[in-house]
Amino acid sequence: MTQILRINMGGPEGPEVTQSTLDGYEGLGGRAMTSTVISKEVSPVCHPLSADNKLVIAPGLMSGSAAVMSGRLSIGCKSPLTGTIKEANAGGQAALMLAKLGYAAIILEGKPENDNLYKIIINKDKVVIEADNRLKRLGNYDLIAKMNETYGDKVCCISIGPAGEMKMSAASVAVTDKEQRPTRHAARGGVGAVMGAKGVKVIVIDDKGCPMRQAKDPEKFKAANKEFVAGIKKHAVSGEGLPAFGTNVLTNVVNEAGAYPTHNFKIGKFAGAAKISGETQAELEISRGGNATHGCHTGCVIQCSGIYNDKDGNYLTKQPEYETVWAHGGNCGIDDLDAIAQMDRLDDDFGIDTIEMGVTIGVAMEAGLLEFGDAKGAIDLVKEVGKGTPLGRILGNGAAFTGKAYGIERVPVVKGQALPAYDPRTVQGIGVTYATSTMGADHTSGYAVATNLLSVGGKVDPLKPDGQVELSRNLQISTAAIDATGMCLFIAFPILDQPETFQALLDLMNSFLGTNMTSDDVMALGKSILKNEKEFNFRAGFTASHDRLPGFFINESLSPHNTTFSVSDKELDEVLN
Amino acid sequence: MTQILRINMGGPEGPEVTQSTLDGYEGLGGRAMTSTVISKEVSPVCHPLSADNKLVIAPGLMSGSAAVMSGRLSIGCKSPLTGTIKEANAGGQAALMLAKLGYAAIILEGKPENDNLYKIIINKDKVVIEADNRLKRLGNYDLIAKMNETYGDKVCCISIGPAGEMKMSAASVAVTDKEQRPTRHAARGGVGAVMGAKGVKVIVIDDKGCPMRQAKDPEKFKAANKEFVAGIKKHAVSGEGLPAFGTNVLTNVVNEAGAYPTHNFKIGKFAGAAKISGETQAELEISRGGNATHGCHTGCVIQCSGIYNDKDGNYLTKQPEYETVWAHGGNCGIDDLDAIAQMDRLDDDFGIDTIEMGVTIGVAMEAGLLEFGDAKGAIDLVKEVGKGTPLGRILGNGAAFTGKAYGIERVPVVKGQALPAYDPRTVQGIGVTYATSTMGADHTSGYAVATNLLSVGGKVDPLKPDGQVELSRNLQISTAAIDATGMCLFIAFPILDQPETFQALLDLMNSFLGTNMTSDDVMALGKSILKNEKEFNFRAGFTASHDRLPGFFINESLSPHNTTFSVSDKELDEVLN
Repeated sequence: MTQILRINMGGPEGPEVTQSTLDGYEGLGGRAMTSTVISKEVSPVCHPLSADNKLVIAPGLMSGSAAVMSGRLSIGCKSPLTGTIKEANAGGQAALMLAKLGYAAIILEGKPENDNLYKIIINKDKVVIEADNRLKRLGNYDLIAKMNETYGDKVCCISIGPAGEMKMSAASVAVTDKEQRPTRHAARGGVGAVMGAKGVKVIVIDDKGCPMRQAKDPEKFKAANKEFVAGIKKHAVSGEGLPAFGTNVLTNVVNEAGAYPTHNFKIGKFAGAAKISGETQAELEISRGGNATHGCHTGCVIQCSGIYNDKDGNYLTKQPEYETVWAHGGNCGIDDLDAIAQMDRLDDDFGIDTIEMGVTIGVAMEAGLLEFGDAKGAIDLVKEVGKGTPLGRILGNGAAFTGKAYGIERVPVVKGQALPAYDPRTVQGIGVTYATSTMGADHTSGYAVATNLLSVGGKVDPLKPDGQVELSRNLQISTAAIDATGMCLFIAFPILDQPETFQALLDLMNSFLGTNMTSDDVMALGKSILKNEKEFNFRAGFTASHDRLPGFFINESLSPHNTTFSVSDKELDEVLN
Repeated sequence: MTQILRINMGGPEGPEVTQSTLDGYEGLGGRAMTSTVISKEVSPVCHPLSADNKLVIAPGLMSGSAAVMSGRLSIGCKSPLTGTIKEANAGGQAALMLAKLGYAAIILEGKPENDNLYKIIINKDKVVIEADNRLKRLGNYDLIAKMNETYGDKVCCISIGPAGEMKMSAASVAVTDKEQRPTRHAARGGVGAVMGAKGVKVIVIDDKGCPMRQAKDPEKFKAANKEFVAGIKKHAVSGEGLPAFGTNVLTNVVNEAGAYPTHNFKIGKFAGAAKISGETQAELEISRGGNATHGCHTGCVIQCSGIYNDKDGNYLTKQPEYETVWAHGGNCGIDDLDAIAQMDRLDDDFGIDTIEMGVTIGVAMEAGLLEFGDAKGAIDLVKEVGKGTPLGRILGNGAAFTGKAYGIERVPVVKGQALPAYDPRTVQGIGVTYATSTMGADHTSGYAVATNLLSVGGKVDPLKPDGQVELSRNLQISTAAIDATGMCLFIAFPILDQPETFQALLDLMNSFLGTNMTSDDVMALGKSILKNEKEFNFRAGFTASHDRLPGFFINESLSPHNTTFSVSDKELDEVLN
């Protein structure tokens, strides 16, 4: 990874390609790369859809190597949804392939003056950019089929659906998986809208003829990798729960804890939870000839993904994730897995964040557009997004936007981004993360649920404010560092609980990179990323006043525990100081 | 004015009325009252539609007296459009009547738990609050007709139309004029949505049996009033231009200066300007039996209002203001006065800000929903707002919202509020006001156009940055003070140019109030208001980064002068320090 590929989509005679060495960005990967580039090169007060914004696509530091779990791709920009800096990451094959091609980052800059829609083809010999307006408004699935026809089925695609083309604030960027399906999404914060504003429909990556990246110390690397795999396999979450039931293993756990936001965050338990749990889902998938244990990228040993077939046994979508099942399910009072899977398929096809979409439907239900539990009505709403009707334009811009359109107050967002699947009144630690994350409400940026509900990395009472600030802070720092490596965040479960697995990770990185990083260095890396991000947000106009949950989490208590979010503003202000 | 009337719309058994003395709010009127109450009593981070927000309705310090021009009513809240503190003011009869009834402020608090829509009737004997759901979704005109049937035609009404009920961010509060028409609007910033969130459709005010407020020194007061009138009459703007042609006298002036934003701020001159100018409009009004010289409230001696009849000579709407004619006219490439007047009527009836609505239509044109110049299409868009269709929900939430819905970048807003009818690239002083006002883009908060284009209060070259900061600062300070008095802002023309008229104003106030205010005291009052407002905004999360014009005013030059907005960020940061 010695090259940066810059593509100025606003060149006077069309897109201009520049390849350069890292030149100041040495040693950066993933989120560390995206946030550093955005922070250095993008004006924090620019319009997110303007030529001044950039879309940075970066594999992690370990991507393209034989290190297991190293296939996460980071995508960064100034977010059209939140106005903050944004990094969203995804699995799939792109990080691996880009890293093998030697690219530490692709940076999309500028903006075409015309209405053309472009495809970018990257292989070891060249970068080709072509206007191809026949791709306009194609769903991700049809788009990828077309790309496979032309470029074969060994490529990987990074693409947007109609939502990104329409520059909707909830638009995602899709990344294909091993089976050429556009199922892995850098979903949050509207990164797809920025790609749409750049006029780029798809980046087709072909790593043919490129070797894997080699470790500086191959022997140590091989040993560390083996130890690391063993650690992952022996932990209950990464070795048992996730492989068997996927992320949706959480439905029963979170619901039992009374932390499952139901009916747009009105109650903490969903009566229909068992019908949409990971256990039920896996059984259904297997019974229909699907697969409940599947990896989203080469080198994954957790295998939390899966294949969801329809009633006739035909592929419908990948196994919907816990957050998706919740957002479209319990949050909307819907307990029908097939309806949820249909929405997941539509979301992936249109290229839209499943969390934002589901929460938005919940807000629409709160506003009286349809009843809680109306699965058919919910599916129809998602279809509006794909069609780009005025209603679709409202919904596709997310929960905050929809709440404003219909004049309602109970809208679960922070910095304009929808809250994920854990109620902050019952999981106070995750509430701290939602409020203070540099990304808007985001569970992955400091997953305090692990400690609050799963007793991973210690125990902190989920119902009380005590200890949550420190918990969230440490997790936000370590997560930022993990997001730089290209490692899947689910390695956090074993490394938080098993010191020897954390050591194996350090050994893996040091033997690969030729470094001598300690755990302190990892934390320092995480801190430096957050510092950059905070500073960008400050210059964009964000202050402590924005690090707050919506008032109803403080004013309305949540059954069954009848708690409110009780971490004080003062404590929140200390999280990332 | 010794009383404050508080109405808690969220009482457990329905609305609760409390009358109190001024208790800490002594000596405050108009914007000084609204901004002080909001600043002291409302959490800056609350949701604008929540029970925690308040709507403060306050006559000016001089309202209810025989002082000419003293009939402005201030309405304040945290704005659903901008998120900042907000004061919007209006003419009409309400300030006079409330002041005569002795109320320095009505404060609407809380929020009903149910869906009821209320009317509030206030007379010298009592305050009555009744749920009346037959009023739901009535336009302001039908509503007032109903109120007149029940309460007679000597009352004044403060009301919202369907836009306010739907809590649209561009919803206005209407105030009836002398002829019982809901034509005077506290329009900007969505104050109507906050009234809607409180569940209040209309406040009917009856001042029967209440005397005018008396001056402390009646003789001096009478003399000062006479001198003040003479000063107003002898100034070319307030004595000639405004009476003859209304505010629309500005169309030719601003267009000639190349400062007339045309086609969503793409060019600075509109080819059809002569067809929609104040001169043309007055001639048309008179020819149809309307009236080009009319006062919106008792005691007005400028008479800049008018009556616009349709082709058959029937009343259609009040004389559309310059800003309205521009927003729906040249800004949208429309040169048809009848089409503009129809939109003015619809805006008033639905209760929506004409500036925000017109700029929003321009943004919709920019987004390709209809062509520039399409008058019928524009009228149809306004009708969507009244119907509350999804498209109407988008448009009724304003220009920034519509720009986001359709993913376009060229959206002329500051802090989410649409720019008025002067391009900041040709009138740099008003650009400073747009950027730094505590209210979002607002021409009335520091009308540098007066000095930049009309040579009132001195001369400052409109095309250059030099001197604009000081000009805008002084005007913002003096305007805040005027907005506290209840005086119409158009007194600024004579008092800026004629020292004896400014002295007459001071004499008028001192003889009425029994004070000894100097011009320094007036400026100190203005400063204290701005300080309160700035401080509220800071606590709400606004920083210098928000005191900026959209990028295209800096990046795109405007014909015919080919200038960009060139006041630096550093200078902007000094305006209200």
